[in-house]
Formats: sequence, C-alpha cells, structure tokens
Amino acid sequence: MSKGTQTKLINPSDKFVVGVIGCGRIGKIHVQNLVQSIPGIVIKTVADPKLDDSLRSWLKSLNIANITTDAQQIINDPEINVVIICSSTDTHAKYSIAAAKSKKAIFCEKPIDSDLGRIKEVLAAVKENNVKFMVGFNRRFDHNFKRIRDATVKGDLGKVQIVKVTSRDPSPPPLEYVKVSGGLFFDMSIHDWDMARFQAGDEVEEVYALGDVQISPEIKGIDIDTAVAVLKYKNGAMGLVDNCRQAVYGYDQRVEVFGTKGCAIAENDVPTTVKIYTKDTTIQDKIPYFFLERYMGSYQEEMKQFFDCLKTGKEMPVTGQDGMMDIVVAIAATKSLKEHRPVKISEVF
Amino acid sequence: MSKGTQTKLINPSDKFVVGVIGCGRIGKIHVQNLVQSIPGIVIKTVADPKLDDSLRSWLKSLNIANITTDAQQIINDPEINVVIICSSTDTHAKYSIAAAKSKKAIFCEKPIDSDLGRIKEVLAAVKENNVKFMVGFNRRFDHNFKRIRDATVKGDLGKVQIVKVTSRDPSPPPLEYVKVSGGLFFDMSIHDWDMARFQAGDEVEEVYALGDVQISPEIKGIDIDTAVAVLKYKNGAMGLVDNCRQAVYGYDQRVEVFGTKGCAIAENDVPTTVKIYTKDTTIQDKIPYFFLERYMGSYQEEMKQFFDCLKTGKEMPVTGQDGMMDIVVAIAATKSLKEHRPVKISEVF
Amino acid sequence: MSKGTQTKLINPSDKFVVGVIGCGRIGKIHVQNLVQSIPGIVIKTVADPKLDDSLRSWLKSLNIANITTDAQQIINDPEINVVIICSSTDTHAKYSIAAAKSKKAIFCEKPIDSDLGRIKEVLAAVKENNVKFMVGFNRRFDHNFKRIRDATVKGDLGKVQIVKVTSRDPSPPPLEYVKVSGGLFFDMSIHDWDMARFQAGDEVEEVYALGDVQISPEIKGIDIDTAVAVLKYKNGAMGLVDNCRQAVYGYDQRVEVFGTKGCAIAENDVPTTVKIYTKDTTIQDKIPYFFLERYMGSYQEEMKQFFDCLKTGKEMPVTGQDGMMDIVVAIAATKSLKEHRPVKISEVF
Amino acid sequence: MSKGTQTKLINPSDKFVVGVIGCGRIGKIHVQNLVQSIPGIVIKTVADPKLDDSLRSWLKSLNIANITTDAQQIINDPEINVVIICSSTDTHAKYSIAAAKSKKAIFCEKPIDSDLGRIKEVLAAVKENNVKFMVGFNRRFDHNFKRIRDATVKGDLGKVQIVKVTSRDPSPPPLEYVKVSGGLFFDMSIHDWDMARFQAGDEVEEVYALGDVQISPEIKGIDIDTAVAVLKYKNGAMGLVDNCRQAVYGYDQRVEVFGTKGCAIAENDVPTTVKIYTKDTTIQDKIPYFFLERYMGSYQEEMKQFFDCLKTGKEMPVTGQDGMMDIVVAIAATKSLKEHRPVKISEVF
Repeated sequence: MSKGTQTKLINPSDKFVVGVIGCGRIGKIHVQNLVQSIPGIVIKTVADPKLDDSLRSWLKSLNIANITTDAQQIINDPEINVVIICSSTDTHAKYSIAAAKSKKAIFCEKPIDSDLGRIKEVLAAVKENNVKFMVGFNRRFDHNFKRIRDATVKGDLGKVQIVKVTSRDPSPPPLEYVKVSGGLFFDMSIHDWDMARFQAGDEVEEVYALGDVQISPEIKGIDIDTAVAVLKYKNGAMGLVDNCRQAVYGYDQRVEVFGTKGCAIAENDVPTTVKIYTKDTTIQDKIPYFFLERYMGSYQEEMKQFFDCLKTGKEMPVTGQDGMMDIVVAIAATKSLKEHRPVKISEVF
Repeated sequence: MSKGTQTKLINPSDKFVVGVIGCGRIGKIHVQNLVQSIPGIVIKTVADPKLDDSLRSWLKSLNIANITTDAQQIINDPEINVVIICSSTDTHAKYSIAAAKSKKAIFCEKPIDSDLGRIKEVLAAVKENNVKFMVGFNRRFDHNFKRIRDATVKGDLGKVQIVKVTSRDPSPPPLEYVKVSGGLFFDMSIHDWDMARFQAGDEVEEVYALGDVQISPEIKGIDIDTAVAVLKYKNGAMGLVDNCRQAVYGYDQRVEVFGTKGCAIAENDVPTTVKIYTKDTTIQDKIPYFFLERYMGSYQEEMKQFFDCLKTGKEMPVTGQDGMMDIVVAIAATKSLKEHRPVKISEVF
Repeated sequence: MSKGTQTKLINPSDKFVVGVIGCGRIGKIHVQNLVQSIPGIVIKTVADPKLDDSLRSWLKSLNIANITTDAQQIINDPEINVVIICSSTDTHAKYSIAAAKSKKAIFCEKPIDSDLGRIKEVLAAVKENNVKFMVGFNRRFDHNFKRIRDATVKGDLGKVQIVKVTSRDPSPPPLEYVKVSGGLFFDMSIHDWDMARFQAGDEVEEVYALGDVQISPEIKGIDIDTAVAVLKYKNGAMGLVDNCRQAVYGYDQRVEVFGTKGCAIAENDVPTTVKIYTKDTTIQDKIPYFFLERYMGSYQEEMKQFFDCLKTGKEMPVTGQDGMMDIVVAIAATKSLKEHRPVKISEVF
Repeated sequence: MSKGTQTKLINPSDKFVVGVIGCGRIGKIHVQNLVQSIPGIVIKTVADPKLDDSLRSWLKSLNIANITTDAQQIINDPEINVVIICSSTDTHAKYSIAAAKSKKAIFCEKPIDSDLGRIKEVLAAVKENNVKFMVGFNRRFDHNFKRIRDATVKGDLGKVQIVKVTSRDPSPPPLEYVKVSGGLFFDMSIHDWDMARFQAGDEVEEVYALGDVQISPEIKGIDIDTAVAVLKYKNGAMGLVDNCRQAVYGYDQRVEVFGTKGCAIAENDVPTTVKIYTKDTTIQDKIPYFFLERYMGSYQEEMKQFFDCLKTGKEMPVTGQDGMMDIVVAIAATKSLKEHRPVKISEVF
C-alpha cells in the first residue's frame, strides 16, 4: 500500500476532541460511555436538532462545553478531530461525507444509508479524504458473540459449516415507525446480516428469504414481522437467520457456529443465576427485556475499540465495507422475498 | 364413519402374537423392548435372511419359539396378528402389503419406501384390508421432543411461528452406504421432516433446500453431507432444518418451537449432570454418541404406544399418511436442491 | 493373605441360582432388574411372608419356579448359591448369617442392622464362612455420583478437601413409620454417611450433628425431620451433610467434592432438557419425584456389579465393613445430637 | 420513637458533600462509583496517608478538589456531610467515632473493628450523635444473592430451614497478610457470617466451626485455610458455611436457601453464556477470577442504596448492629475452633 492511500492516523499523542451529532437514545448511550469509560478524550460539542431543557441540563452536568442544535458547528470546528454520528438514519451519509471532507475520524451509527449508491458516495469520501471510519454494529462486541468469533478465529471450531443467528424483539414497534423503517430486513435484520457475516468470516453469496405477517395484521402490505433466511457464503458455508418483531418472553439473541472441529453456542444472558425450585415448577429469571439491558456492554466495548484503533492505527473492527455489505444483503433478501427465489448478491451489487 | 371403513380393532382381550421380520440392529432393539417392557404379548416368530448362530442363540435365550430365515412363515401364520417390519428398506412395502392382506396389524420401520407410488400402494392395501398401521418415527416419542409438542398442544406456546430442527450425526457413514442410501434428504433428514411436521402440527407447503459436500470429498456427485432447509407450512409458519453427517462432538439433536405465547427449546441430553471446575476450564460430559444412546427411551415408548393403540383402538401416533408426507418433503427438498429454487409440495405430490 | 482366608469365588462357569428373600418395593426392583438385565442367572425361589395373589401372579409371569412364604426354603436349598436379602431391616442380620453358614453369596439391602454388635456377628459369619457379601448402597452406582468419584480417583480434583452431600425427601413418611425407623440418622441419612465416605475415599473420624423438627410437629420427641452434620475425616478433609424429610419441589439429591485441583458438582437430574420461555417466566421440568424415578439406573448397576464381582472374584464395591461404618457414623451422629457436642467415631466403635 | 432518638435525616434538598478517608483498592472503587453512578453528590476531599503521584493524578482527573494525606481535614470540614471510610481496618473505629461526633453520615467499610468493645464504642457514638451509619457488606447487594433474599422476603420459599453459603478465594493471600488478618474467620468468613444472617433474616444463636491447614503449610499455627461451620439460628433454622483460601478454578461464590415452600440456588456467574462442544469435551467459561470481577455491580448498588437512604431517611440496609453481630459470630467461631465444641453467641456477647 502506497503512503498516499494510508488512512490518516491520528497522532497517539493527540488529544481526541469529539463532536457528537445526534443525541437521542443511542447518542446518549455513546456520550455516557465516552464520559465514563474512555479516558483521555473530551467531548467538546453535542449537536441535536431536538435539543430540549432536559437534554441540555443532562449534557451540562457532564461538563460538555458546547451544546447546540446545529451539527455544522461540529463539522466546522477545526479542533474537533472525531465525529460520532448518531443522528436519524437519513442524515448519516450527509454528515459522514461532511466529516470526511473536514478530515475528521468518523464513528457512524448503523446503517450508513439504505441506498447503495449513497453508501458508495460515503465510502468514496472516506477513502479520498483518508479518514478513519467505523460503523456501529455493536453486537460484534457483545461478550457472548465475541467469544464465539474468538474461538473460530483461534481455530477451535475448524472450518465453519453452518452459522445460525436468532434475533427476536420483545414487542413490535409502532405502526408509524414500521412505515418509515425501510422494512424488517433493513431495520431489524441488518444486525443479523452483519452478525452472520462476522461469525462466518466470509461474504454472503446468495440469500433466500421467507417472511410473513404473524403478529401485527395492521402492517400487512407494509412490512413483515416474522422471517427466516438462508444464506450461502462464498466459501460454501451456510447461514440460517430467524427474526420476529415479538418474542413475548424477552429479547431473544442467540448465535451458533458449527464447524468441522466443534460447535459453539451462545445462549441468552440472564439477569441472575438464581433458580427457584417450588412445588409447581423450577423457574429462572426472564431474559433481558431489550437491547439497552442486553447490549450495554457491547456499546462500551465498541467505543473503546474505536478509540483504540484511532490511537494505534489498526484497522477498524467494523469497516465502511461491512456497513455496505450488510445493506447489500438486506437488498438481496428483500428481492428474494418479493420474487420468491434465491437471489445472488451479485444481482444487487 | 361407516362400520365398513373402520380399522379393525384387535380385541383387547386378544393376546398379541407377534412376528418380527428383520432382526438387524433396529430389529433387535424392538425385540428386546417387546420382551422387557410390553406385558401381555408373545413374540412367536422372528425371521431374518441373515440368521447366524449368534442371533439364533440370542433369540433362543429370549424363549422365542420360531426362528427362521423365511418371512413368509410370519405372513402365513394365522395365529400371528401383529407384524413388526424391520427388514431392509426396499422390502418394507412388500411385507407391509402382504401383512395387510393377511389382516395383521403392522408396525413398519421408517421409511415405508422411497418411491411415492409404492407408498400409495401400501396405504391402499392398509385401507382396503382395514388393518392398523404405524410407521416407526421414534423421535416423536423422545422425552424432550414430546415435552415440547405437549406444551404446544396444551397451548402454552400460542400459535406456532417458527420450528427449528437440528440433527447432526457423529460421523459419516461408509461410502458404500451413502451410494445406496437414497441421499441425505431421504436417509437422514427424513426424521427431521417428520419432526418438523410433528412439532408444527401442520403440513409443509413448500421447501427450499441448500446442500453441499463439506466433510467427505469422496461423495461429491453422489450425495451431500451438510444441508439446511427452509420449510413453509400451510398455516403460514416457517421451519428451519439443519443437518450434517458429522458433528465431532457427538449426536446433536435439538428442537425449538417459537410461538406467539412463548418458546420451547430442547437441548441435547447429557450422560450426567456433573460439572468439573478446574484451573483451566469448566467441563461437562459430552453429549451421547449416537442414536442408540440417545433414543433408546423413544424406541421403548413407541412400541408401548403402538400396542396401546392396538388395545384401545385409538388412532396410531404416526400414521401411514405421516410416513408418506415425510417422503414427499424429501422428494421436494431433493428437487429444490437440484433446481436451486423453492419447490411446492404440490409439485411432487 | 493365606488361601484359607480367601473369600470363596463362585466358579465363573457356575450358573448363578438366586433366591430372593423379601419381595416388597425394593425386592421387586431387584427381581425385575435381575430378570431384565443380568444374563446367565436364574431366580429359582422368591420368599415373602406377605405373599398375596398379585405378587404371586407377577412372579409367575416372570417364570419363577418357587414362590413361597418361607425364607428357610432358600437357605436350605443347596442349588441356590446367591441370596438377595430384601426383607424387613430387623431380619437382615438373621438371614445374612444363615445364608453365610449355608455358604451362599449374599447381597443384603442396607442397613445390615442398626445394632453394632449384631452387625459384627454378621461380618464374623461372612468371614468365617468365606462368602461374598455386598450391602445395597445403590447411590454409589448412580451415574452422577459415580462420575464424581471417578474424577477424584483419576486425580482430576487433587486431594479432597470438602465433601458436600444434600439429600432431601419429597415428603415425610407416615408417623407410624417414623416411630419404628430408628430415626432420621439411621433411616434416611444412612445413605449420606455412605456417600460421604465413598466420595472422600476415607473414614469419618468425628461427627457433629444438629437437628430439629421443622416440618412435622407431631414427631417432636420421637425424631427430627431436618438436620445438618459436619464430618471430620481421618485425612483431615471435612464433610457437610444436610437432610430434610420434605422438599416440596421433589427429591433433592446432590453431591459436591472440592479438592486441591478442582471441584465437581452433581446437580439433580431432570426428566427433560426442555426450557419453556413465556411472558411471565422461564420454566424447566421439576426434578424427579422420589427414589424410584431417580435411582432406577443405580439399582440396575449395583446388581450388575454384584454379579460381575461374583464372576471375577473382585472385591465387592460395597463391603460389609462399609455397611458397618455407615451405621457407626449414624450412631455417632445420634450421640452428637443428644449430647450437643462433636463425637468421635472411636467413642462408639 | 421520640424525636430525640431519631437518626438525623440529611435534608433531601441538601447537596451531599462527601469526604473519602482511605483510597486504596476498595476506596478507589467507591470513588469511581460515586463519580460515575451517583448523581447529585460531590466528592470534596479524598484523604490517604500513602498518597502518591499516580493516585493524585487519578483523583485530579476526576475533578476532586482536595487531595490530602490528612483525614482530619475531612472530619473538620463543616461542609462535608458524608464520610466514606475505606482506610485500614484498625482505623475504622477511630474515624467512625470522629465522623459521628462531627455529625456526618458514615459509610464504613467492613469490619467496623475486630474488637467487640471498640465496636460498641462506635455504635454508641453513632447513636449519641444521631447520625446515619452503614457498614460495607457489599455482597448483600449482589444481583444473585439479593434475588434469593427477595424471594424469601416475598414468601416464595416459605419458612427458611437451611442456609448454605460457599465462599472460596482463588488463591491464598501472602503470609505477611495472613499474620495480620485476624484469621480466616474475621478476614474472609466475615462476609459469609453476614450473608448467612442476611439470607436467614435471623440472628445466629450458636456456632460450631471446624478448620484446618490444607493449602499453605507455612501458616500452620498462625491461621487455617479451609473451614466449615454450622450455624444454629434463633428461630431454629440451620446454616452451613464452607470456606477455602484457594479454589484453583476461580472465585467460588454461591448461596442456597431451603425453605418449607421451596429452594433457591445462586450459582456462580460466568463471563459468557457460550458453550463450546468439541471432540474431547464440552467447555464453558471459567468463573470470574476474584471479587473485583465478581462483585463490581454490588459495590455500585450498595453506594446507591446508601445515598438513597440518606435522601429518604429509610433505615440503612446494613446497620452498625449488623456489623457488630458479624464480628460476634467470628469471635464465637474462633472460640469453637479452639475449644472444639459448639459455642453460643451469648457466651461471647
């Protein structure tokens, strides 16, 4: 690789001066984790268009200097060298491109965009401006799922043959959300396409997807709420994903990797290890309710690794390419569902 | 139902006089279970074409009166009113039809046949002669899988949305066996098509199957050894089956049913509950090695239920129709794999 | 050891001709297991003083030649070379001595007797007549507990430091039974003293026991129903036993061995591996109800090993010495409870 | 209760101004948790006699105003209304009394002191000055153990019959530490006496303890490293504690409560839920290494509840009385070990 194409390495002695664009639910998580767990960084500015008193006072309590509704302040600030983009999905590409042009390192929440052409523009801007870029697929940093991937990389499982990803939400989102979500394969399964690619260590070659409305009759014609998909990887391995917008028992998040030397299975987390044996039954705690309970550790870890990569110059653990390929799988799955046939990735890419 | 179409009920006061056709590995299991666990029956004759001294002396030790190489002795014996067919698969149909014509109740090992037309002949003979007929899908009687089905039937899981069946053998069969096995979808997955239908309580409408050679390069062009399949049921539910001829860690047999009110998961059995915590790791026993270790209880239970149904006149828990539909799914899966597209059951039936 | 003191080895080519004395609940289990699982033996005679039609017809169905109320027929029969003693506890010693004098191999249900002097008489008769003698502490043959002992013997756990035995019955026995049981430490904990000795591979040196009536007020002054005990072994290891006559959730049977190289824990068995996740909770099957459900496998295994030892001449896995030492611990525990102080085994032995 | 005896309630509208005395391993944990998780408090001063550059710079990074070697600055500061005492054990009483006299609310790390008379002086000072006082038995706030206690309090387990506490350290402390630790029963088991009292919801009436040197021969005559104890509670329940300074497999921390309506068991935490099945074995993660990994959540929770009680005026979840009774049990256990007999709490209190 010639020097010219090297991604700019933020000088390890540099102070990281961070701007956060978008401070809704996920933005707050990142702000809090940055403040609490990442030493040596300063959040200089947080921008959110819906800035209210409550948010403002919370940010003040964290000693954040600039609190604004104008994201452009972050883009324009030469002192800020890292941008965390947590704004609404339709603005991810815009801010990513702007931040890249301003030579800032970028952490962009998933997905980069739902439009493939737009994603390519982002990746081009990142490349051209030679900036670091990471996409926020936090589940790769989950203690359980990372443990499986580590076993695979270490060779404990041999050659991967089958990857299984189960991901079910505790309850369906409001109809209004479903209408603008881009569909289950983009909005919810996107994490699973990424997990499936991550665990296999390989790209998907073909998708066959099946979906239906089994929970919320009112979304018929708009979206599906239950789906399964079969993936064929380039190296011949196979993947199985199953999704549902509603699992009444909690947020069901499991992964299994089966290979020539063994099989690794990650069960759901439980709040406590306690089992209670009574006359009628043996009970244990319900699994965590939703992603905040389940994945908080992974959000902390992804932020930590993002800054570690900035410091060391190592490649980002979730690249722009990853962000793009996950969307490509979502596009192929959607096409498969519509045309009721297996769809090759090459057809949509 | 008019009296004429009623299946002949063996008089509960009748003594069951049993003939066993075929006494290889599975035949021996049934003979032993009949002797040990089913009171009130007599095995009068056992016929096996490969009768050797060892088999003969074992059968003698069980006080079995007639030991012969000629199955026809069983068919022709008017005292024998129950036939257990455990001979090689290609003779199942022949003996089933002969036994039906002789008005004997029939337990036929799976599968009835691999040819759909031949199966229909068997079912016609059974119907015409008004005899009881059960197919030996023993896994329906497994303590774990039955527990899940019971929960579903009881309504604990609500409407079934997704059924998942994992079935992996500990090691691949010899090449010679693979050549005559009819293929993984007929020989191995047949249990899983049945389990998938059993757990859903519904018929499969469409199959999409993917398969590959990942374990045994020498079978390339003859068969596959790793496969996944997506099922679409008539009622809209979806199924996921994954198979492999080799799981180095043992005989991996799991089932999951996800419904609107909950999810039931059957893990693998383990020989003991013991966990050993040492400096290096926490270990537990390996899962059972193969089907004899894993499913012995289910073989006992299926025989028990077969005779219970004979006594009470209740419908057989695995009917000839079941035996036929499982083969139909296998045919559709094979066609799907070959033509690389989802295949409707109606296309092959 | 001089030839004269060698225990008589039944000639491996001998046929084992068995007499069973006492055919209540436990006697039936042994008879059934002998018939079903131990090839090459013949039960010639079963004697039970309470012989009724039901028992008689069951024994006939098993082709047992002599069915009698008179145990003496067994003792006197020169053809019978093995006696299984399952009669009431107060007759164990009498029949053991008589069988020994008749030079028969003996399997005696636990306990040999509750009186130490009487036990010594039995052991003397066994020694003098040079016959094989085994006491029926079936739990040593339980798959879980045996697995732990095997790990210890293999050295996986290092030097044993702490042994923990939990044993709780599902519900208290009737008052009438409690009155004649000899007390919880003799009747129920006797298995646990044996398990504690077995797992440590060492003798108990001292006991401290604490007990109380917590379940059944009506037994106050007669017996206790909840107890704990601390054991000090000769080699310095320590033991903890806890017992209760009532565990509303089922038959709680667990063992833990902690050593310098690790710890092995045997949890309760469960009927199925199924977990059911619902809106309200995660449930799994209740543990087995009582000893017939829990320990059936161990009864089969102990009978198998008894005859294996008869065939091979190997030392019995539970000796008369074991049977005596378990009672000695029970005596010491009772003394400890009464005198409210730790009691040395040497005080009662 | 007359107004005069009411513990002074810090005005909920008051700002909590905190002084931390002692900032070693445990002090740092509290400082960090206060900064990160407890809103609305200010740590004004941290005092530590061994203040070095590293500690100073860490405290500065947390914006702590005063960093000093002189604890008296905290005692004398009228603005400081809450003192967190994490200094060496022998100074707990001194600072507690001084803080009480200065009318400050007090959180004191365990134990208050090892001398009963000295503890009484502390409690008297607390009472006289009418200040809030909590002792740092963090394990009461552990997610697993709290879950069991909640079940008991809710009545799910009925009347408590047996409490079992297992607590084993991963590796023994240095000999130098053992010499000044006051002995295993004071230094290590103190948490278990507290847990045993907490889970039973009752006071201990009598202790019988057994202990030995099984790990570190060099401490013979100085201390023991393996111990078990039987507790008798006032209400008749019984307790079993087992301890060891070394569990090679990690930090073994389990609790079991058995009652008339059921049994609750808290197993060890595991870092991930992953199980890896290979040709040789099934493995899962080792349990957490030591208390920092295992109990971090409980330290956060105890600090949170301490300040909640300050705000609401509710009774402290671990009182000075608790701190005293735990030491009383330790004294009785030590006496029991020495005199080799059960010792009544009333003998030492």
